[in-house]
Amino acid sequence: MVVQIYGMTPAVCPQRVMHCLIEKGVEFEIIHVNLEKGEQKTPEYMTKQPFGQVPYIVDGDFELFESRAIVRYYADKYAGRGPNLLGRTLEEKARVDMWLDVEAINLNPLVFPIVFNLFVLPGQGLTGNKAEAQAAAEKLDKVLEVYERQLSKAKYLAGDEFTLADLTHIPALRYVVENCGMGHLISSKKHVKAWWADITSRPAWKKVMGIVESRALKYSP
Amino acid sequence: MVVQIYGMTPAVCPQRVMHCLIEKGVEFEIIHVNLEKGEQKTPEYMTKQPFGQVPYIVDGDFELFESRAIVRYYADKYAGRGPNLLGRTLEEKARVDMWLDVEAINLNPLVFPIVFNLFVLPGQGLTGNKAEAQAAAEKLDKVLEVYERQLSKAKYLAGDEFTLADLTHIPALRYVVENCGMGHLISSKKHVKAWWADITSRPAWKKVMGIVESRALKYSP
Repeated sequence: MVVQIYGMTPAVCPQRVMHCLIEKGVEFEIIHVNLEKGEQKTPEYMTKQPFGQVPYIVDGDFELFESRAIVRYYADKYAGRGPNLLGRTLEEKARVDMWLDVEAINLNPLVFPIVFNLFVLPGQGLTGNKAEAQAAAEKLDKVLEVYERQLSKAKYLAGDEFTLADLTHIPALRYVVENCGMGHLISSKKHVKAWWADITSRPAWKKVMGIVESRALKYSP
Repeated sequence: MVVQIYGMTPAVCPQRVMHCLIEKGVEFEIIHVNLEKGEQKTPEYMTKQPFGQVPYIVDGDFELFESRAIVRYYADKYAGRGPNLLGRTLEEKARVDMWLDVEAINLNPLVFPIVFNLFVLPGQGLTGNKAEAQAAAEKLDKVLEVYERQLSKAKYLAGDEFTLADLTHIPALRYVVENCGMGHLISSKKHVKAWWADITSRPAWKKVMGIVESRALKYSP
């Protein structure tokens, strides 16, 4: 049974799920949900994802939403295959959980107003609130200084191995770096810069970008 | 070795950790951090919790912050003792993860401006922004309508058993219900009301409230 991802490939949270599935060599297809047309807010869609967000997945008779829960599920389901993305001991797993929460709670709410005002709205021919974006960027810089200190002590956020803690950061931060003129937030910090170069050069992430660019709707290992 | 929780007992996130430890019968002590005096922002504190938030825990030579990561850690470490708080199968665990993320991402950001404007600021003799609180309450009502549909299908958020998915909701929502005049958000919804009565009557949660009221700094099973 091929995993079905309901969403669209340019969207951040579906990319997080695609990346995890490619790391684990799991076949999937994208069921296109057109966010620009508001298809994620239709009553039919919201019986599956009641907050009107993307993605949700269908895997046989199992369905799930929230991208970070989905990547935890596949990292656990395919723990014995591909890279270990969860940590190996109770303590390592706890540190992965901690940095997953830092991304969701401390970092992502600052990334959103930057990408929304400097990329999403201008892409629709609208004017974003640059002051709001700049204020968020200044706070994000402080958060990334915490990352800099952490990454001076370990190669990856949760320790010596690439895990979900790193993986969840890539899709949204990539828009900040590549589409919002904010690359200096990363490049000005020695260890963050090296970490970013490392995690975005992973073959699985390059395959995600290939899928986005080619507008493909299927992946087979 | 007694678990040390750095924080203060009236604060939401330390309460989440206390509740989990009491469910599991784990001894702890509170190392008081006075948030009103800003002790969580001192350079010394921030070497342990670099975002200047509470709590962090020290358990022997293991340290961790982010309250939801901490409760995941203890639910796993003491999986064989007390109630199972994680789910039993891969799919049950995934649903627990999903509702943990719904709480952190969809619900908590709406609870915060309500409690801050209607309880925290007035408690300091300041005037909160009532319009901001009301706008958040209207959005929270919509989110809780999703909960109502979910709880019409299962006794608890992730299924038939009380798990971390339910536990994480209690501390912040209690302030909304008891201190912000917003109890109708819960009591107007049949299944949410029954769920709330059930989860807040758990002996472990009553012990948390007892600790807060007595200003105790230690717990032994």
